[in-house]
Amino acid sequence: MRFIVVIAAAAALGLGSTTVHAQSWRPPADGDRCPSKWGADDQRGAANHMKPDTVLRAARLIRTGQVFELGRVLSGSIPLGPRRFELNTKRTVMNPQSNRRGSNEEIVFAEIGQVGTQFDGFSHQTIGNSMYNCYKVDETSTRTGFTKLGVEHVGALMTRGVLIDVAAFKGVEMLPDTYEITAADLQGALQRQNLTLQPGDAVIVHTGWGKLWGSDDARYARSNPGLGVAAAEWLARQDPMLVGADNAPINVTPSPDPQLSNPVHQIMLVVHGIHLLENLKLEEVASARAYEFAFVVQPLKIQGGTGSTVAPIAVR
Amino acid sequence: MRFIVVIAAAAALGLGSTTVHAQSWRPPADGDRCPSKWGADDQRGAANHMKPDTVLRAARLIRTGQVFELGRVLSGSIPLGPRRFELNTKRTVMNPQSNRRGSNEEIVFAEIGQVGTQFDGFSHQTIGNSMYNCYKVDETSTRTGFTKLGVEHVGALMTRGVLIDVAAFKGVEMLPDTYEITAADLQGALQRQNLTLQPGDAVIVHTGWGKLWGSDDARYARSNPGLGVAAAEWLARQDPMLVGADNAPINVTPSPDPQLSNPVHQIMLVVHGIHLLENLKLEEVASARAYEFAFVVQPLKIQGGTGSTVAPIAVR
Amino acid sequence: MRFIVVIAAAAALGLGSTTVHAQSWRPPADGDRCPSKWGADDQRGAANHMKPDTVLRAARLIRTGQVFELGRVLSGSIPLGPRRFELNTKRTVMNPQSNRRGSNEEIVFAEIGQVGTQFDGFSHQTIGNSMYNCYKVDETSTRTGFTKLGVEHVGALMTRGVLIDVAAFKGVEMLPDTYEITAADLQGALQRQNLTLQPGDAVIVHTGWGKLWGSDDARYARSNPGLGVAAAEWLARQDPMLVGADNAPINVTPSPDPQLSNPVHQIMLVVHGIHLLENLKLEEVASARAYEFAFVVQPLKIQGGTGSTVAPIAVR
Amino acid sequence: MRFIVVIAAAAALGLGSTTVHAQSWRPPADGDRCPSKWGADDQRGAANHMKPDTVLRAARLIRTGQVFELGRVLSGSIPLGPRRFELNTKRTVMNPQSNRRGSNEEIVFAEIGQVGTQFDGFSHQTIGNSMYNCYKVDETSTRTGFTKLGVEHVGALMTRGVLIDVAAFKGVEMLPDTYEITAADLQGALQRQNLTLQPGDAVIVHTGWGKLWGSDDARYARSNPGLGVAAAEWLARQDPMLVGADNAPINVTPSPDPQLSNPVHQIMLVVHGIHLLENLKLEEVASARAYEFAFVVQPLKIQGGTGSTVAPIAVR
Repeated sequence: MRFIVVIAAAAALGLGSTTVHAQSWRPPADGDRCPSKWGADDQRGAANHMKPDTVLRAARLIRTGQVFELGRVLSGSIPLGPRRFELNTKRTVMNPQSNRRGSNEEIVFAEIGQVGTQFDGFSHQTIGNSMYNCYKVDETSTRTGFTKLGVEHVGALMTRGVLIDVAAFKGVEMLPDTYEITAADLQGALQRQNLTLQPGDAVIVHTGWGKLWGSDDARYARSNPGLGVAAAEWLARQDPMLVGADNAPINVTPSPDPQLSNPVHQIMLVVHGIHLLENLKLEEVASARAYEFAFVVQPLKIQGGTGSTVAPIAVR
Repeated sequence: MRFIVVIAAAAALGLGSTTVHAQSWRPPADGDRCPSKWGADDQRGAANHMKPDTVLRAARLIRTGQVFELGRVLSGSIPLGPRRFELNTKRTVMNPQSNRRGSNEEIVFAEIGQVGTQFDGFSHQTIGNSMYNCYKVDETSTRTGFTKLGVEHVGALMTRGVLIDVAAFKGVEMLPDTYEITAADLQGALQRQNLTLQPGDAVIVHTGWGKLWGSDDARYARSNPGLGVAAAEWLARQDPMLVGADNAPINVTPSPDPQLSNPVHQIMLVVHGIHLLENLKLEEVASARAYEFAFVVQPLKIQGGTGSTVAPIAVR
Repeated sequence: MRFIVVIAAAAALGLGSTTVHAQSWRPPADGDRCPSKWGADDQRGAANHMKPDTVLRAARLIRTGQVFELGRVLSGSIPLGPRRFELNTKRTVMNPQSNRRGSNEEIVFAEIGQVGTQFDGFSHQTIGNSMYNCYKVDETSTRTGFTKLGVEHVGALMTRGVLIDVAAFKGVEMLPDTYEITAADLQGALQRQNLTLQPGDAVIVHTGWGKLWGSDDARYARSNPGLGVAAAEWLARQDPMLVGADNAPINVTPSPDPQLSNPVHQIMLVVHGIHLLENLKLEEVASARAYEFAFVVQPLKIQGGTGSTVAPIAVR
Repeated sequence: MRFIVVIAAAAALGLGSTTVHAQSWRPPADGDRCPSKWGADDQRGAANHMKPDTVLRAARLIRTGQVFELGRVLSGSIPLGPRRFELNTKRTVMNPQSNRRGSNEEIVFAEIGQVGTQFDGFSHQTIGNSMYNCYKVDETSTRTGFTKLGVEHVGALMTRGVLIDVAAFKGVEMLPDTYEITAADLQGALQRQNLTLQPGDAVIVHTGWGKLWGSDDARYARSNPGLGVAAAEWLARQDPMLVGADNAPINVTPSPDPQLSNPVHQIMLVVHGIHLLENLKLEEVASARAYEFAFVVQPLKIQGGTGSTVAPIAVR
């Protein structure tokens, strides 16, 4: 019954039917996508856009000094799916010297690259045994990380950020539960904002779904509006440095084509070498209509890691 | 015998005797330091300097777009002291759908707030039972973190960064093994660089000690040149946003006064509410004589955490 | 309202009022309990009863070969209180040789000494800073365990086990939610079973509370029937090798005297050096009226550990 | 050079050449080994020998009450290979009540089923994707363990234990570094001890290699004497309940046939459903010539676990 209500609401908003945008996509063969356009042994993909000019272009967008925090607080009670973030406080040491210096710390057990607001590295995703630039899982994975495509190769990223507010374009606070964002949605939203994408941008998609974080975590995790295959392919053609959103998987969930498991992850990370940013906190930046800004993210340099929990910012 | 050689070298460089700069310091009583100048219930200390003007001042220093990465690669084989960073790769899932999407991740077990290049939060250090702004350990610590002074309160920091190159001022690549940096050293180095500190700066001290990271980790950990009490107190009076260095404890090690255990940690974190950045990678930024820059650090928002491993940058 | 019902039920069963058995106890001073009767540097306490004669006495009770498993299955979904048991499967290796040997394992993150059916070691509990035989926490604790009183000193224990079925003595399947077991209860139950305790016995108390494990975990953890101070002191005077029960804390919860926090733990572990076994699975052994048996438990030899999760057995 | 010395020593002892005993073995097809002789849905394999008669047979061997501890102390500094055992002490709680009850515990991060003296469960090993009784890894593995063949199904084992002292049979304290134990060695050693195996025995092989544990851990891990394929197949035909040894992999290392990776693990765990016990401490039991005893092991009931670290005993 809930489904019917959702679809009715979508129709009323002119949000269309998901059957129209059904995903049909097949992962390309290794030979059709490798070597990457960034070179046969490249490990950074679109992060190679990070150059002095990119930084300067971003810095010029800083006009008021206003900072938007795009990272969520990290704790064991956030939506983690099957993962864990377990923090144990340690009251470790009261040093014996006369200045009575006590020292506290904590032990954390977590899928640290894949919890909270997170930056997905290239070793996170595969097509079969093959990752970005056709590095093979079997040949690069060790007990203590990957010998190729580890997140330590990315480095800090500072570039022009563009928020594409699809929810505002559709006239809603939050897109419906399983809404597939189309290329036309992205284009329409950009037009409404009077902005165009440039190669090397950090493209951030606002679905409104982040409003559920902390208020209805179960719904946040059950499904989500997000990019469809066509939108992802159009975005990839714009040559961004990275793509982020205020949902967990970037992709619309469930996948409109049940034969596909999160194809957007493969399109971005494996095929095109474009990093992803998940679970962004976009409420403030969207509410302020801050559509263009300097974007800065500093992934932890986890050697051989598949990603990094992060706390990125938008500055304008 | 090694000791004699070191002292002889220090004398030849005019580096003086450590006995001259002997630390004598007593932690102030709670009543003499609380409430903090930032207010009776403040939890951010000098991070309150983070305001639009601070950001704009930093952004204006970005002239070439050059980025210096100040964070070390994070792995189980870096100097960790008694702490751990254990990463276990997980080849978790080959999804059943036809697009053969494989997903890798890793489980990490670590004192995640206190490993590698790290940002020390206020719940990390105490004078007896009392922390910054006289929050009490007993009243704020839980099994899963601190209810006050958690690192999630800090937020991203972007401000003018000033590198004080004490090693260059002394005419050496690396200060001697137990060299106590004095206030005069800091002042002399700034004068040589033709710079003055301003309230809200990120002050980064270059000792040269970071050259040992990865090449002689045992020596890196055994002792280190660093700030003495007098230098730390002078620095605190300059009202910086944070203080960092290319060593593990900021303080000179061992403490010249054996009755004091790392008093610089207490002076900065507990008494003055100034965050610390440890194990910075300063080789490139010092070599480039990049003494003034936009400094950006994004501590993870670990709820109730005592600190965060980080990957900060300097941009000019 | 629930409380009134419980008390009414207790009265109907002749279970008495808890106010009568109110606990009043003060931890003895160090000088009144040290050195232990087992010697000034002893670390095993009543586990010193473990001798060849003890083993032979136990072996002679094996007449049918029937084995009762007294350990609960260990997983992340059992009642853990504030602790954790996180198991992550690792499909680690498919070896390259022709015999296609795959090897699976798991990473576990847990308070491994204090989860599930568990054996409490002496470093687990203190009176202030002082533990069994007056070893001091401050002098024996390190980051990686205790230098004294670690559970590795205990060794496997095999002795006569005696089940004291207090629930059956009271004519109920399960004692009421906050029922304080008295010395008279223990004595009456033993008389009903026609058994007497002997020094060195493993004394196992059946409250029936274990029936809630897995069926009503919330109630299992909220309160529990268990030993009161007087019963614990009487038991300690019988000189057992260890004491166990089918509840989490051995002690009745909440403590009848709100000024005391689990005094039974201090009486047994700190004062008398008697190990404890918690969360035992006693349904089958009680149902079979197996009141006397060979009892065997093999604590893990965790160096410096405060306890061990275990899987003990009763054999008759 | 060391190699030559070893071979010469082996020749002098009549230990033969490893080339004679070269392993040649191919893992049987699923159809040739399934269903198991214990039934099509069996998960316990030879642990099904555990019955009242088995227990009684073991109990009758207890004549002096002497207990031999066969488990090693568990810590982060034992030979762990690529695995970890990280214990962090927690001084967790000083409860507020007047009895000043302090409570310590520890957080452990470890491959808990596969460290130290350990009991290998059936989900630990595969032939390709197939495990004991042809359960499939792909169909039974989850993030939090295996839905089939978890070590919780085994239960405590008590049976007649037989120590086969191959080192003593060969007249050495310790077999050479890469010595392959043959079926004739096992038979000869049993004849020397005047013992025969019976179905359901716990068969424990003494190689002497355990002498290196803690004294030369590097050599302990580099190679080891152990069972060859022929010896393992002969042993499996004797229908034991389990097989253990004082080395890490049971199999001789390196495998005489470089095309085979630890075939003994597959022969025992996958093909015949016979559990393995590794890293046993056999010095005392061998020195006492205790060749026949009651053997008791209590694997932790880790739900879905691939094994359990254990602390077994031999009692006579």
